[in-house]
Amino acid sequence: MANEKDTFVENIADIEKDFPQWYTDVCKKTQLVDYGPVKGTMVIRPYGYAIWENIQHELDVRFKATGHSNAYFPMLIPMSFMTKEAEHVEGFAPEVAVVTHAGGEQLAEPLVVRPTSETIIGNMYSKWIQSYRDLPVLMNQWANVMRWEKTTRPFLRTSEFLWQEGHTAHATEEEAIEETHKMLGVYKEFAENVLAIPVICGKKTEKEKFAGAVATYGMEAMMKDGKSLQSGTSHYLGQNFAKAFDIKFLDKDGTQKYVYTSSWGVSTRLIGALIMAHGDQRGLVLPPKVAPTQAVIVPIAAKKGGVLEACEKIKGDLEKAGVRVLLDNSDRSPGWKFNEWEMRGVPVRIEVGPRDLEAGKVMLFRRDRCEKAEYPLEGLEKCVADLLESIQTDMLESARAARDERIVKANDLQGILSAVEGGNFVLAGWCGCRECEDKIKEKTAASSRVLSEELQHEVCAVCGKPAKHTVYFARAY
Amino acid sequence: MANEKDTFVENIADIEKDFPQWYTDVCKKTQLVDYGPVKGTMVIRPYGYAIWENIQHELDVRFKATGHSNAYFPMLIPMSFMTKEAEHVEGFAPEVAVVTHAGGEQLAEPLVVRPTSETIIGNMYSKWIQSYRDLPVLMNQWANVMRWEKTTRPFLRTSEFLWQEGHTAHATEEEAIEETHKMLGVYKEFAENVLAIPVICGKKTEKEKFAGAVATYGMEAMMKDGKSLQSGTSHYLGQNFAKAFDIKFLDKDGTQKYVYTSSWGVSTRLIGALIMAHGDQRGLVLPPKVAPTQAVIVPIAAKKGGVLEACEKIKGDLEKAGVRVLLDNSDRSPGWKFNEWEMRGVPVRIEVGPRDLEAGKVMLFRRDRCEKAEYPLEGLEKCVADLLESIQTDMLESARAARDERIVKANDLQGILSAVEGGNFVLAGWCGCRECEDKIKEKTAASSRVLSEELQHEVCAVCGKPAKHTVYFARAY
Repeated sequence: MANEKDTFVENIADIEKDFPQWYTDVCKKTQLVDYGPVKGTMVIRPYGYAIWENIQHELDVRFKATGHSNAYFPMLIPMSFMTKEAEHVEGFAPEVAVVTHAGGEQLAEPLVVRPTSETIIGNMYSKWIQSYRDLPVLMNQWANVMRWEKTTRPFLRTSEFLWQEGHTAHATEEEAIEETHKMLGVYKEFAENVLAIPVICGKKTEKEKFAGAVATYGMEAMMKDGKSLQSGTSHYLGQNFAKAFDIKFLDKDGTQKYVYTSSWGVSTRLIGALIMAHGDQRGLVLPPKVAPTQAVIVPIAAKKGGVLEACEKIKGDLEKAGVRVLLDNSDRSPGWKFNEWEMRGVPVRIEVGPRDLEAGKVMLFRRDRCEKAEYPLEGLEKCVADLLESIQTDMLESARAARDERIVKANDLQGILSAVEGGNFVLAGWCGCRECEDKIKEKTAASSRVLSEELQHEVCAVCGKPAKHTVYFARAY
Repeated sequence: MANEKDTFVENIADIEKDFPQWYTDVCKKTQLVDYGPVKGTMVIRPYGYAIWENIQHELDVRFKATGHSNAYFPMLIPMSFMTKEAEHVEGFAPEVAVVTHAGGEQLAEPLVVRPTSETIIGNMYSKWIQSYRDLPVLMNQWANVMRWEKTTRPFLRTSEFLWQEGHTAHATEEEAIEETHKMLGVYKEFAENVLAIPVICGKKTEKEKFAGAVATYGMEAMMKDGKSLQSGTSHYLGQNFAKAFDIKFLDKDGTQKYVYTSSWGVSTRLIGALIMAHGDQRGLVLPPKVAPTQAVIVPIAAKKGGVLEACEKIKGDLEKAGVRVLLDNSDRSPGWKFNEWEMRGVPVRIEVGPRDLEAGKVMLFRRDRCEKAEYPLEGLEKCVADLLESIQTDMLESARAARDERIVKANDLQGILSAVEGGNFVLAGWCGCRECEDKIKEKTAASSRVLSEELQHEVCAVCGKPAKHTVYFARAY
């Protein structure tokens, strides 16, 4: 078995030495994803899509519990819509894909494949919203979107990806801002309790905000190489899109007013976050709540009397207990199976051998810590369910501890540079001007991720003028 | 209340006199759908999308129970892929939308927005499938597709629509054919038991088959105007796409063979089927299994002591019993609410008034029969659950009885014409030649829907030569 494991490790690049190649290897070898025929596109394979389905389910329940309904808006947007909000077009025009021909004819107006749907949804809201009675409008859409990117990587940056985009309209500024924060909170709770990824939430700088937003709030997660992955955003759009698309309502006081809107989204990028936040040299490590298979049963010496029957019984019991379980009774060796399912990140492995059975026991292997222990066969469902819960909690806490160790403070450019080169997030003072933010990017390749809620610095790390904010800086995906 | 109802009926066109306008009115007024800004596109509004979510859930469970996994393939397909299967390109090329520019540049090769995904999936399968061990491959995708149509109608024919497309690859012809039939069977069971729509399944003629298939099997449903709606199709593709995309495997006997493939799909068209198969003058009639709201509680004289509290309690009890329930405590009149929720097709209305409460009773209204009866408050959850089950069953049986009365036999062109003008499906003999099929279409506006399993005619209704098949003819959407 040791040999097989060695063979296996050879197949995945060294996580310490070549993190990007390790990522690509894990993506491909675990059959999460493949490259599509058009450059920059990806095929989400069943194992990857099953993770996405679990993510969708968990989020969808939360969106509905907070009063949102799903809807579906057309993918093709008239080019003229894109230009109605000045910042929006500037941000997105360079990366749109354009349909110019359809049904054998050239179109009178080119159509943009949605890079995001504020414009087309704004157009519909202006038809639907007439009175304060129609507000708030709280909708979400699960959809594909397209942003033509030069450099792409599966899940992290692809020309087409899957996401959800919430779009809400409100009578007052306060309400819209509250919604923006509420959904960021939903994302944070989800990221931590479902993905087991601790996140830092906060306001983005002007430079990093969404094109067309008044304010963007982001959720940043630390990957194992110390880089940050923006894992979700929530935008307060003020009346920018309301004015561009004439979304007005008759208020209680008898006057016509523009609505205030918000939008928020997360995408298949989260699968990339899962890989890079939890993975190790053996491959994926999936938190139980999103793992397509939560427990895999591997029979040892399966031909010996009673082993396969015992495995079938365990499988049935676990299914009844609501565990997503797989019995691997293929003709591969146990060692091969161990490697395969470890690589695929299955949280718990149940090893069932004839001697164990005689002793009324089985071995449980937990993927997150790569630890093995004996458990009684009697009442195994409960043990497995408890173990899955522990893994879920422990993964979050272990990721949090590892991250917290890698958040450091810096007082000047050199400090920021050495910190990010060491794979850290950096807290540094910032005067608030674009020049200093750009300079940090230029000198350290770190960008501002989010503003810290508290001011922890007296001066800007670049210009030395009084600091307006303490900012999280990091190199980012 | 009578007056309100009158007002209401004025708003929806007469179902007997102007069925197309009735359809449009119901679609719009129940807020199922709206027109998108680009001609031929639709916005699926929350009420319509909630039906789609229920459809998705019911189907997805069935796909997984039959061994299929979901995946996601890119939406953009290189134009060159489309031309690899000769019949396929002929069928779809005229209606594709084409991306020619992206990221600010003209693309080297134009990209087609998928009208269906056989080609791109075939391309990926050729990479993934190497050995008989890799077979069968059983995948499904939930996605948007685009077919540029001249004449469009919400749900029935729109340039973009949502659907699922299953794509499978098998080692043998028998297995692929079995899959084709199995999935048609899944659709039929789903249509009847979930949508409460009786369907006629059978093989399509060469003229009506899918572009690129060896054989297409269709599921046809009768709408209330006697026209047929193709509600799902399952295609046996033989080795057509395997050869076009070089999908080969090393078989057990050591030789390289092409796989056999199938594909099958249903779409948001099913929402159109629900409207037209069950709707009536008051609007939608939704079968409980897909109704977003299964029961609506309407308080009568809500301000009287205890009414609202009783409604809240009923709501809680029903929710616990798994019923999707809504309490309408808005400030509208009960009459307005009755009309609104009848129009929206909610299967059961629970009327709760102070006098009813004193007597320990409530009124239950069932939408399918527009009948009202008194039920004891005690144990109401059980009554409502039972009633929902009865409605589900009764709707299917009543639709089946109505349809069966409208399937008639004809022996000649004149017979076919008068039958379809009377809003019937027609069983007629057919010699099997394209000319006779075209002539029926030309003279009666009826197309062949599916072949009947048994030959019930001696001669062709057109040419009088010996009949090879008995065929269902109907005017169709």
